[in-house]
Amino acid sequence: MDFSASATASEYRSRVKEFITSEIAPAEQEYHQQLRSQASPWSVPPLMNTLKQRAREAGLWNLFLPPAYAQRTGHGPGLSNIDYAPSAELMGRHAIAPEVFNCNAPDTGNAEVLVHYGTEQQQEDWLLPLLRGEIRSAFCMTEPEVASSDATNMTATAVLDGNDVVINGHKWFSTGIGHPDCAFVIVMALTDPDAGRHQRHSMVLVPMGAPGMAVGRMLDVLGFQDEPYGHGEVTFTDVRVPRENIIAGPGRGFEIAQGRLGPGRIHHCMRLIGLAERALELAAHRSTTRTAFGKPLANLGGNRERIAHARIAINQARLHVLHTAWLLDQQGPLGALSELSQIKASVPRVAQEVVDMAIQLHGAGGLTADYPLAAAFAAARSLRLADGPDEVHLGVVSRLELAKHRDSNPNGA
Amino acid sequence: MDFSASATASEYRSRVKEFITSEIAPAEQEYHQQLRSQASPWSVPPLMNTLKQRAREAGLWNLFLPPAYAQRTGHGPGLSNIDYAPSAELMGRHAIAPEVFNCNAPDTGNAEVLVHYGTEQQQEDWLLPLLRGEIRSAFCMTEPEVASSDATNMTATAVLDGNDVVINGHKWFSTGIGHPDCAFVIVMALTDPDAGRHQRHSMVLVPMGAPGMAVGRMLDVLGFQDEPYGHGEVTFTDVRVPRENIIAGPGRGFEIAQGRLGPGRIHHCMRLIGLAERALELAAHRSTTRTAFGKPLANLGGNRERIAHARIAINQARLHVLHTAWLLDQQGPLGALSELSQIKASVPRVAQEVVDMAIQLHGAGGLTADYPLAAAFAAARSLRLADGPDEVHLGVVSRLELAKHRDSNPNGA
Amino acid sequence: MDFSASATASEYRSRVKEFITSEIAPAEQEYHQQLRSQASPWSVPPLMNTLKQRAREAGLWNLFLPPAYAQRTGHGPGLSNIDYAPSAELMGRHAIAPEVFNCNAPDTGNAEVLVHYGTEQQQEDWLLPLLRGEIRSAFCMTEPEVASSDATNMTATAVLDGNDVVINGHKWFSTGIGHPDCAFVIVMALTDPDAGRHQRHSMVLVPMGAPGMAVGRMLDVLGFQDEPYGHGEVTFTDVRVPRENIIAGPGRGFEIAQGRLGPGRIHHCMRLIGLAERALELAAHRSTTRTAFGKPLANLGGNRERIAHARIAINQARLHVLHTAWLLDQQGPLGALSELSQIKASVPRVAQEVVDMAIQLHGAGGLTADYPLAAAFAAARSLRLADGPDEVHLGVVSRLELAKHRDSNPNGA
Amino acid sequence: MDFSASATASEYRSRVKEFITSEIAPAEQEYHQQLRSQASPWSVPPLMNTLKQRAREAGLWNLFLPPAYAQRTGHGPGLSNIDYAPSAELMGRHAIAPEVFNCNAPDTGNAEVLVHYGTEQQQEDWLLPLLRGEIRSAFCMTEPEVASSDATNMTATAVLDGNDVVINGHKWFSTGIGHPDCAFVIVMALTDPDAGRHQRHSMVLVPMGAPGMAVGRMLDVLGFQDEPYGHGEVTFTDVRVPRENIIAGPGRGFEIAQGRLGPGRIHHCMRLIGLAERALELAAHRSTTRTAFGKPLANLGGNRERIAHARIAINQARLHVLHTAWLLDQQGPLGALSELSQIKASVPRVAQEVVDMAIQLHGAGGLTADYPLAAAFAAARSLRLADGPDEVHLGVVSRLELAKHRDSNPNGA
Repeated sequence: MDFSASATASEYRSRVKEFITSEIAPAEQEYHQQLRSQASPWSVPPLMNTLKQRAREAGLWNLFLPPAYAQRTGHGPGLSNIDYAPSAELMGRHAIAPEVFNCNAPDTGNAEVLVHYGTEQQQEDWLLPLLRGEIRSAFCMTEPEVASSDATNMTATAVLDGNDVVINGHKWFSTGIGHPDCAFVIVMALTDPDAGRHQRHSMVLVPMGAPGMAVGRMLDVLGFQDEPYGHGEVTFTDVRVPRENIIAGPGRGFEIAQGRLGPGRIHHCMRLIGLAERALELAAHRSTTRTAFGKPLANLGGNRERIAHARIAINQARLHVLHTAWLLDQQGPLGALSELSQIKASVPRVAQEVVDMAIQLHGAGGLTADYPLAAAFAAARSLRLADGPDEVHLGVVSRLELAKHRDSNPNGA
Repeated sequence: MDFSASATASEYRSRVKEFITSEIAPAEQEYHQQLRSQASPWSVPPLMNTLKQRAREAGLWNLFLPPAYAQRTGHGPGLSNIDYAPSAELMGRHAIAPEVFNCNAPDTGNAEVLVHYGTEQQQEDWLLPLLRGEIRSAFCMTEPEVASSDATNMTATAVLDGNDVVINGHKWFSTGIGHPDCAFVIVMALTDPDAGRHQRHSMVLVPMGAPGMAVGRMLDVLGFQDEPYGHGEVTFTDVRVPRENIIAGPGRGFEIAQGRLGPGRIHHCMRLIGLAERALELAAHRSTTRTAFGKPLANLGGNRERIAHARIAINQARLHVLHTAWLLDQQGPLGALSELSQIKASVPRVAQEVVDMAIQLHGAGGLTADYPLAAAFAAARSLRLADGPDEVHLGVVSRLELAKHRDSNPNGA
Repeated sequence: MDFSASATASEYRSRVKEFITSEIAPAEQEYHQQLRSQASPWSVPPLMNTLKQRAREAGLWNLFLPPAYAQRTGHGPGLSNIDYAPSAELMGRHAIAPEVFNCNAPDTGNAEVLVHYGTEQQQEDWLLPLLRGEIRSAFCMTEPEVASSDATNMTATAVLDGNDVVINGHKWFSTGIGHPDCAFVIVMALTDPDAGRHQRHSMVLVPMGAPGMAVGRMLDVLGFQDEPYGHGEVTFTDVRVPRENIIAGPGRGFEIAQGRLGPGRIHHCMRLIGLAERALELAAHRSTTRTAFGKPLANLGGNRERIAHARIAINQARLHVLHTAWLLDQQGPLGALSELSQIKASVPRVAQEVVDMAIQLHGAGGLTADYPLAAAFAAARSLRLADGPDEVHLGVVSRLELAKHRDSNPNGA
Repeated sequence: MDFSASATASEYRSRVKEFITSEIAPAEQEYHQQLRSQASPWSVPPLMNTLKQRAREAGLWNLFLPPAYAQRTGHGPGLSNIDYAPSAELMGRHAIAPEVFNCNAPDTGNAEVLVHYGTEQQQEDWLLPLLRGEIRSAFCMTEPEVASSDATNMTATAVLDGNDVVINGHKWFSTGIGHPDCAFVIVMALTDPDAGRHQRHSMVLVPMGAPGMAVGRMLDVLGFQDEPYGHGEVTFTDVRVPRENIIAGPGRGFEIAQGRLGPGRIHHCMRLIGLAERALELAAHRSTTRTAFGKPLANLGGNRERIAHARIAINQARLHVLHTAWLLDQQGPLGALSELSQIKASVPRVAQEVVDMAIQLHGAGGLTADYPLAAAFAAARSLRLADGPDEVHLGVVSRLELAKHRDSNPNGA
C-alpha cells in the first residue's frame, strides 16, 4: 500500500494549484462584480473566457477525461481517477474553477456519454465543441411530479415515430441550462413501457431551441440561483428530433445513466473535499485572528475541538474518496458500486457540517456573500439530494453489505 | 404542576389559529406574487396592509406586549409570556404572520424599550405609531469588524456635544431597515470608554434619514435578503441628534440591551417551535403521499424514525420554551437567565435539523421557494447567530451550572 | 400552565431528599461492603432491612401507588404520577434507593397488576406482603429465542388442563429473580394460539419453587449482575398451578401487559432523570476540582459546552417526563400513548450520553466502581432495550404522528 | 497511490486469518470455560499455552516488531506498520487473539522499549523471555490522584540513592499485572523536579515481587476485570532497585514514553477496526436472521441505514489508520504526530458506536457474555481514555492545525 501520489498526479496537482493561486483566486472578486453588473445574470462575465483561454494554454484542460477517452478524442492528458482526484479537489475550492478548467458538471458527464456512445457525427457536432469549451450542455432527468430517485417513476416520453422520436415531458433541476452557451441537452425519457425495467428508457440528444422545448424559470437552491449556470425547469411538448439522436439506440437510457452517474458522483465528492478543506482553512484562520472576550476565538468554548473534528472528518472523507477512485480505476463502476454510494451518502454531509461550523465561527457575516461559505453550504446541502438522495445510496450500501453476511458465520475471522 | 393552557392562552391561540387558517395561509401565495411583481422588492405588498387591518380589527394585535405595558399604552390584551407562547408559536409557522399581528422583531423589542424607558414625547412620536402599525423600526447593534457578542468590543461612538449627541460608526445586520415604513432606529454605541464595563454604552434613537446616516447594501443570509424587511449595513458619520434621544440617559445602553434581549430571544424561540412544527407536518404529509420504489416514502429506510425523532425533539423544545416563559413571568429575566440561554442555544438547532430533514424528504424541490422550507432553514440557521451565537449562550449555561456545584457534595440527593 | 410543584409533590420531594441525604447516601458504601463480604452475593445486606424499616416508619413507603390503589389497599399516600415524579427522580440517583422506599421494579408493576386484577385471596397472599416489603417478585416475559418486542412471537405456553394450567417455556431477563426474598413470578405465556392476536396470552402467578420451575444463571449486563436482584434465566417444564392463578382469566395477558408497562416505563424514565442529574453533578464537581495542564478541567477543550449540553438535555427530558406524567394522570395510558413511547425512546439515551460524558471527565476511574457512573451507564444502556427497544417505541411515535397528518393540509395553522 | 496490500501484508493477513478461523475461533468457548472453572480467575487456561505454541510454530509470532527490531532480536518477521495492520486488525476480532500471537499490549510496547533502550543484560533477562512468550509484563504510569494525561502532574518518585534508585508512589490501571506470568513492570516516576519539563522523569524496570511493591485490587472497567490480565492498583513504598534499572538513564522517561506510545496507539486502533468489523458482521447476520413483526430486523425502522452508516464509518476509519501507519513508516512518529492523535481520538468512538448499534440489534442478549459485544463495548469505551483521553488528542490535532493556518491566506489553493 502506497499513499504517495504518482508523479503525474503530483505534477498536475501542483500546476493546478499554481494556476488557481495566481489566476483564479485573485480574479474571483472581479468575476462576481462583472456578473452582478451585467444587464442579465444569465450571461458570461468576460473574465471567464479569459481564464478559460489561459487554462487551456497552460494545458490544464479537460483533466477529467479518462485515459482511453483522452486518447480517442485527442483532448486532455488522460488522467486516471486516482490521478485526477488531487486536481479535482483543488477545483472544488473555488466555485468558478471547474468551468475554467473545462471540468464542470454536467458537461463532463455529457462528454463522457458522447465519447462512449456518440456517433461520429454527434461527436463532431457536439462533443468536440464541448471539449473545446465553446458550448455548454445540460442533462434533463429529474421530474417535479415524481420521486426521480426511482427511475421507473419517470413520466416523460420519447416515442418513436417513423424516422423521428417525439419527446413530451416536464423536467426540472436541469443544471447549466441557464448558461447562454448551453447548446444541447440530453433528455432521459420513457420509450417502451412494456420492456424490461431497465430497457424502457432512452437518452435523446436535443439541441437547445428545438421547437416545443421551453425553458421555464430557474430554480433557487436555498436562495441561490447559481447564475449564469442555473437549475432550470424545462417542458417538452411534441419535441421532434431525428431518431439517430437517441444515444446508442432506443432502450439504453438506463444503461447509459448508470455508467454516467458513477464518475459524476465521484467528481462531486472530490470537489467537496476541496470545498470542505477551504472552509476549514477559513475557520482556522478566523479562529486565530478574531478576538472576543479577550481571547482569539480558538481559545473559546469548544472551538478547538470543532477544528480538530473537522480535520479528522475531512481526512477520512478524502481517503475514502481516493480509495473509491482507485477501485473505480482498477475494477470499473461495478467493482466500486458500494464505495461510490458510500462516499455519495457521506461526503456531502461532512462538507455541509464543516461549512456550517465555519459559518458559525464567522458570525453573521458567514451567512453572507462576503465569504464563500454560504454558497458552499448550499452546494454541499444540495449534493445530499442531487444524483440520488443520501437515503437511496445508504440503501445500496446496506443491500450489498447484508448480502455479504446473510450466510456467513460471524465468529470466524 | 398543570400543563393545561389558561383560558386566555387557549382563547387567543384559537383565534390566532383561525385567523391564520382563514386569512393568512390562503393569502401567502398572492402576497409573494405581489412582492415579486413590484418594481422594487423593498416596498410593501398591498395585501400586507389589508391583513394587518383585519388582524387589528379582530383584536389580534400587539399580543406580545406584557400586561403592565399593555395597560400603560392601552395597546394589546396584555398577555403574560406563558399565555402569549401558543399564539407566538402559530405566528412562527408563516414568515409573514408576525408582521400581520404587529408582533414582529425588532419592532417588538424596540416598543418594549420605549414603553419602559421612553419619554412621553418619544412615546408619542415613535412608540404609538409603532403600536398602531404605521411605522417600522430597526436596531443597530452588530458591527462587521468586531465580535459583537462581546459588547465591550463595540467601536461605534455616541459622544456628547453640548445639547447633542454625535454618532459615528459602522453597523450591519440591522434587520428591518430595508422596509419602506422604517422610521427610526435605535443605535447602541460607546459614550464613555472610561466608565465601568457595563456603563459605557448608550442607546440612541435616530430618525431614518438623519444627516450623516447612510443605509448601504442589504445583506443576504444563505442567499435570502428577506425583502421587504432586509438586513442592512448602516454607516453613521457625525450623525447629530438631540441629547434627549439617548434613551434613559447616557451609559445605560448595556442595561437596556440586557432587558431587551431576554424577551426577544424567547419570542424567537416560540416562533421557531411553530416553524419546526410546520416543517414536521410537511414532512409527515409528504412521506405518506409521495411514492418511490412502490412504497410511500414513510416506509423507506429510516424515514419513520426521523419523523419520530423530530416529534420528540419538538415536544421537548416546546416544553423547554414554555417553562422558560413561565419562569420569566414568575421571576423576571434574572430568574430565567440560564433557561433563556438554554433555549436560545438549543431551539434554533432543533428547528434547523427538523427543517433539514423535511427538505430531504421533499427532494430537490425542498430546496426551492416552492415550499416554505428553504426560507425556514435560513431563518433557523441565522438564529443560531442572531442575538448571540449558540456558543456564547452555552458559556452562560455552563458558568451558572458550574457555580452551583463548585462547593457541593454530589453524593447526596 | 403552572410549572410549580403541588404542595404534596413538594412535601414528599423534600422528605425523600432529606431521607436520602441523611440515611441512604451515607450508608451506600457500607451497603456495598456488606454485599461483597457476604458468602453469597445473592443475599440481602442487613443494612437494607434497616433502611427499609426507617423509610417505612418515615411514611416514605409505596409512594408509587396511584390514589385509587392506595385507597383500596391502605398502603402509600396515593400520589398521582405528576406528584410522584420528583420523589421518583430522587430515588433514581442511588441504585439502592428504590428498594429502600419499596418503589422498585418489577415489584411496583406486579403490585399494580394484583391491585387491579387480583382476587381477594391473591391480594392477601401476594400483594399485601409485597406492599409490606416482606417479599419480592419477578416478571417473566422476555424469551431468548425470539424477538420479544413483538409479543406474538412468544413461544412459552400456559395450557388449561382441568382445574390447572400447565406452563412450559424458557424465559430470561427476569429481573429480581435472584433476590432471596423473591416469592413469586408473573409469567406471560400463550394459551390459545387461535384466538385474536391480543387475546391469545395469559398472565399466570407462579410461586417460586413450583415443581418444574428452574432458575438458571444470572445474566450479566455489560459486566454487571446487579446482585442481589439479578436478571435470571428461568425454565418452566410442565409447571402446574391452579387455574385461578391465571390473573383475570385466560386470554387477558396482552391487556394486562399494556396497562402494566405504561406506568413501569414512566417510572424508569423518572428515575433516569435523577441518575442523569447526579452524573451531571459529579461531572460539574469534577471539572471544577480536578486540574490538568494548569487549569481546572472545566476550562479545557469543549468541557464547558458538554456541561451546558447536558444541562439542556436533562431539563428537556425532565419536562418531557413530567408532561407525560400529567397526561397519564389526566387521560390514562391511551391518552399518553405517543408520549410514553417518546420518553421511553429518548430518556435512556439522554441518560447514557450524560453518564458517558461524566465518565470521560473522571478519566479511567470513571469506568470503575469507585464512582456510581459505570453502574449508571449499564442501567441507562440496558433501559434502551428493557420494556421494548427504542426502535419499537419510535415506531409507535411515528405511526401515531403520520396518522395525524395523512389527510391534513400542512399549510394552515 | 496504490491501495493494494503488499505481498507480505497479504500473506500474513491470509495466514493469520486461517489460524484464527481454524484454531482460535473454535477454541474461544472452551477457553472461557477453562477460565471460569479455575480456582482463581487469575491463572492461565491451559488452552492459551497450546494456542501460543501453535502460533509460534506457525511463524505467526511477534508480528508487531518493526523490521529493525526484528533483525536485532532475531524475533518476528519484521513487518512495517502498514504490513502489520491487516494482521493486527484480524487479531482485534477476538479478545484472546493478541496474546496467542504474542502481540498484546502492554508487552509489545515494553518489548520495543527494551529493544531500543535496554542494556544487553536487560534484554537477556527480560526482553528475550518476553519475545519467547514465557513471561508477561505491565506498565505503571497512570496515577489515581492526578490527571495523568498531563505527565507533569505525576507524583510518584524515583530518587537516586547511591547505586540504587528508590521508588515511591501509587499507580493504577497497570494492565496485565494480574497475569500470573507477569514478571516485571516498567514504572514512570519523577526523578528531578528541577529539570526541564521533559527531563524530569525516569522509566525504571522493577521485577514483580520487589520488596515494597504491592499489587492491590484489580479494577473493574464497566463491570469487567479482564481476567487473567487485569488492571491493577500498585503501590511502591521505598522500592529499591539497582540504578542501572533506570532505562536509558535518569531523566529520559518522557522521551521514552513519547516513542513508546505512538506505536501502542496505532496498534490499539488497528485492533479496534477488527473489533468494529466483527460487530458489524454480527449485526448484519442478526438483522437478516432474526424476525419481528413478520420481517427480518433488517427491514424494520432505520436498521438498514444503521448497517450502512457503520460500513461507511469503519471503511473511513480503516483507511485513516492505514494512512497513519504508512506515514509512521515513512516519516516516524514526529511526521505522523497529528494523524496518530487523529485516529486515537476517533477510532475508539467509531468502534464504540458500531458495537452499541450491534448490541441494540441483539436485544437484551447483546448486553450479556453470550455475545462478544459487551466486552467489546467495554474495550472500545475504555480506549477513549487509555493512552490519553480523546480530548487531549483533539487538543494536539487542533494545535497543529491552527499552527498551519495562523499566517495563511485561506483564499488561495
